[in-house]
Amino acid sequence: MATSIEQVSNLKTSGQLLERAERVIPGGGVYFTRSPRFGVPGMFPAFIRSASGCRIADVDGNEYIDFMCAFGPIVLGYNHPAVEEAANRQAALANGTTFMSEVMVELAEKLVHRWTVAADEIGASRFADWVVFAKNGSDVTTFATRIARQHTGRTKILVASGAYHGFDTWSVPGNAGIPDGHRADIDYFNWNDVASVDECFERNGGQIAGAIITPIKHDSTHDIELPAPAFVRTLQANLRRESALLIVDDIRAGFRLHPSGASHLGYGLEPDLVCFGKALGNGHPISAIVGREELRQSVSGVYFSATHFCAAVPMAAAVGLLDAFDSEHAFEQMTSGGQRLRDGIQGAALKAGVDVRYSGPLAIPNLLFEDDEGLRKMRRWSGLCARRGVIFHPRHNWFLSSAHGEADIDQAIEVAASSFRELS
Amino acid sequence: MATSIEQVSNLKTSGQLLERAERVIPGGGVYFTRSPRFGVPGMFPAFIRSASGCRIADVDGNEYIDFMCAFGPIVLGYNHPAVEEAANRQAALANGTTFMSEVMVELAEKLVHRWTVAADEIGASRFADWVVFAKNGSDVTTFATRIARQHTGRTKILVASGAYHGFDTWSVPGNAGIPDGHRADIDYFNWNDVASVDECFERNGGQIAGAIITPIKHDSTHDIELPAPAFVRTLQANLRRESALLIVDDIRAGFRLHPSGASHLGYGLEPDLVCFGKALGNGHPISAIVGREELRQSVSGVYFSATHFCAAVPMAAAVGLLDAFDSEHAFEQMTSGGQRLRDGIQGAALKAGVDVRYSGPLAIPNLLFEDDEGLRKMRRWSGLCARRGVIFHPRHNWFLSSAHGEADIDQAIEVAASSFRELS
Repeated sequence: MATSIEQVSNLKTSGQLLERAERVIPGGGVYFTRSPRFGVPGMFPAFIRSASGCRIADVDGNEYIDFMCAFGPIVLGYNHPAVEEAANRQAALANGTTFMSEVMVELAEKLVHRWTVAADEIGASRFADWVVFAKNGSDVTTFATRIARQHTGRTKILVASGAYHGFDTWSVPGNAGIPDGHRADIDYFNWNDVASVDECFERNGGQIAGAIITPIKHDSTHDIELPAPAFVRTLQANLRRESALLIVDDIRAGFRLHPSGASHLGYGLEPDLVCFGKALGNGHPISAIVGREELRQSVSGVYFSATHFCAAVPMAAAVGLLDAFDSEHAFEQMTSGGQRLRDGIQGAALKAGVDVRYSGPLAIPNLLFEDDEGLRKMRRWSGLCARRGVIFHPRHNWFLSSAHGEADIDQAIEVAASSFRELS
Repeated sequence: MATSIEQVSNLKTSGQLLERAERVIPGGGVYFTRSPRFGVPGMFPAFIRSASGCRIADVDGNEYIDFMCAFGPIVLGYNHPAVEEAANRQAALANGTTFMSEVMVELAEKLVHRWTVAADEIGASRFADWVVFAKNGSDVTTFATRIARQHTGRTKILVASGAYHGFDTWSVPGNAGIPDGHRADIDYFNWNDVASVDECFERNGGQIAGAIITPIKHDSTHDIELPAPAFVRTLQANLRRESALLIVDDIRAGFRLHPSGASHLGYGLEPDLVCFGKALGNGHPISAIVGREELRQSVSGVYFSATHFCAAVPMAAAVGLLDAFDSEHAFEQMTSGGQRLRDGIQGAALKAGVDVRYSGPLAIPNLLFEDDEGLRKMRRWSGLCARRGVIFHPRHNWFLSSAHGEADIDQAIEVAASSFRELS
C-alpha cells in the first residue's frame, strides 16, 4: 500500500450517505464520537463498510489503519476469528431468552478467578468477588453509584473534574436537558491534586457514598496522566475515614494497562467496585461491574434489569476474548506495538521540527501539539494522516490492538512523518 | 410431545448452575426479570441452553413453548433465519467501528418511511421524521426526557403512576440507591383517570416539559388496559395548553398492536417522540427514538453517545426484521394465534370452574386469577404449566410471536387446561 497523499482518492460515497443520513437522523448521526463534526470533516470518512484486524475500509473503497479501535472495544483486532467463532457457536444455540444462560456463569467465574489471582499475585487488595453484566458502560457506572448509596445510606458521589463516566444524568458532558438539581449530589475534585481531594472530602464530610475515578486520567484533548502515589494515598485515606466506597471506572482503559485487564492493579488503588466494558467483548456489547464480598447484599437490593443484559452471545464473545487475550499474548503485543508507535511518532515529529506531547500508557496513548489553539494543528495533521490511510483521532486518545503488527505500525509512522513534514 | 406432569423430568442442572451462579453473581442473577425469584422457583428452569422458533430448551434437556419471547424482543421466533442471515451478512463485514455504517442510514430511512405512511394511511399525526438508535430501552426513554426538557426549557416530566419506563433514576422501581431529590421533577397521574390528569397538569402548570405514557397500560400484575378516548383527549388537551411534549414508550408493546409496529396508531395519540426497542431487533440489542421535525434542533443539542450505539449488526438485524415481519404477515400470525390462545385459555378456565381475567391485546395478553392474594394461584398454575412444558409468566404480561403456530398453541391450551384442573 502506497502512502502518498492520493491514497485516499475521494470520500464521495461517504458524503452522499451523510446527506441521506442528515435527512433522517439529526445531525446525520447524533452519536457524539461518531458524528462527522467530532472528527475532521472532509478528511475523515463518515461511513465504514468492512473491518478486519487493524484495518477498516470505507464506503468509497479507501482502506485505513485504525488507531481508534471503534473507540476502544477492539482489543484483538476487528472480526477476531476466535472471538467470532465463540460468539457464533453461542448464537446457533441461543442469545437472549426468557431465562439466563450457562455461559453467564462461566464468564462470571472466569472473571472472578482471573482478577482474584491477579490481585493476589501483587499483594493488592481483592476487588472481584462477584460480577454483574450489562450493555453500556453507563449502565454499570450508574449502577455503581446506586450500590454505593444503597450500601452507605449516604448520597454524595465525588468525581474527578472533567472525567467522563458515561451519558447518564450525573456524568454526561454539558447540561442540555438536565435540570440543575440532578447533579446536586455530585461534587468534584481535581486529578492528582491532593489539596483538592482533601477539600472535596471535607466539604462533603458525613454525606459521602463514594468516589469514582478512572485508573488514569484520559480526558479528551488533555495529556493522559497516571495517578500519582500521593493522590492515591490521599484518596484512599479520605475514603477510609468516611467509610465511603472507591469505584474505579476501567471501561475505557481496561485490558490495555495490565495483563489481567484490570488497569488499577499496580497503582495502590483499593477499589470496592470496578466497572468494565469496551474491550471485554472485542466489539460485542457487554459491560460488567465487579465488586467486593461486603457489597453483595447491597447489590441484590438495587433493581438492575434490561432486556439484553442476559444475552448470551456477547458473554460467549467475552469468554473467547479472555482465552485469546492470554494465548495470543495480546497485552505484550499491544505494549510492544505501542512502544514502536510512540518511538516512531516522537522521532518523526522531532525530525520534522514539530513540537508534540505524546502521553499515556503504550496501548492507550494521546498526542497533542504544543501551542495548538483550537486544536488546529492536531486536526490538520489528523486529517492529513487520514488522507494517507491512517486514523489518528484529533480529540480523543488512541487505542492499540494486538492486531497492529510491526509492518502496520511502520506504515503508520511513515504516514505520521510525511504529515508532520507537510504541516511544518 | 406428551403433556403429562412428568414431561419436565427434573431441573437438576439448572439448580446446580444456580448454586454456582450464586457464588459469583449476587442473587445468582441480579437481573430482575430473569432472577429465579421473579418466576416460580423450583418449577421454572433457571438456565436455557438453546432456543428456536417458539421453543426453548433448558440445561436439563426439558423443552418449553415460551410465551415470554425473552420478555418481548422475539417477535418472529428465536433464531429467525432471515433476521440471523441479515445479521451474519453484516457481521462478516463489520459491526461497530470507529465511524458509522451505511446500514444505519438504510434502517433510519425505512423506519421514517414506514411510520409516515402508516400515520398518513389513517390520518393520524405524523410522528417519525427522524430516528436515533441506542441499545437499551432506558437509553431512549431517558433521552426523550432530555429532548423534552431541552426543547421546552422546562423540567417536569409527568408519568402514569406504576408505569415502567426503564431502569434509569427517574423510573426505576423502588428507591434503593436513589436519593429523593432525583425524582423531584417527576409527577404522577393515574391511567385512564381524567380527573387525575387534569390535577397533575394543574399542579405543575408552566413547568411541564412533557408527559410519557405507554400506548397501553401493561404494569406487572395488573390487568392490561387500553387508553380510553376521554383519557387521550384530556392528556392531549393539557399537553397542547402547556406546549409540552407527548412521549410514547412503545418499547414493550411495539410490533404487537399495529401492523406498522407503532402501537399508538389508532388511539388518537399525537406523540412528539416515540421510543422503540425489544421487537425491533428480534433479539439483537437495538432501541430507537423517533420524533417530529420540530424537535430536530433540540435533539442535536443533547449529548447522546455510547460505544455500541452505532453497531451495525443489530441494525442489519432490524432491517431483516422489518422485511420478514411484513412478508411473513407476522402481525396477522400473532393476532390470530393470540385469539386462539385467549379463546382456548378462557374456555379451559371456564370448564375447570376457575375464575380468571384474560386482558390485553391479542399478541400481548395478561392472565390473572380472581381472589388471588399474593398471586398464589397464578404462581402455582404457572409452575404447573412450566412442569408440563409451557412458560406462562405469573408476574408479567405474555408475548406471542409469529412462530407460535396453531399446533403449539393447542398444545399450550391443553397444558393450561390440565393445570387449571389440577388447581381447582
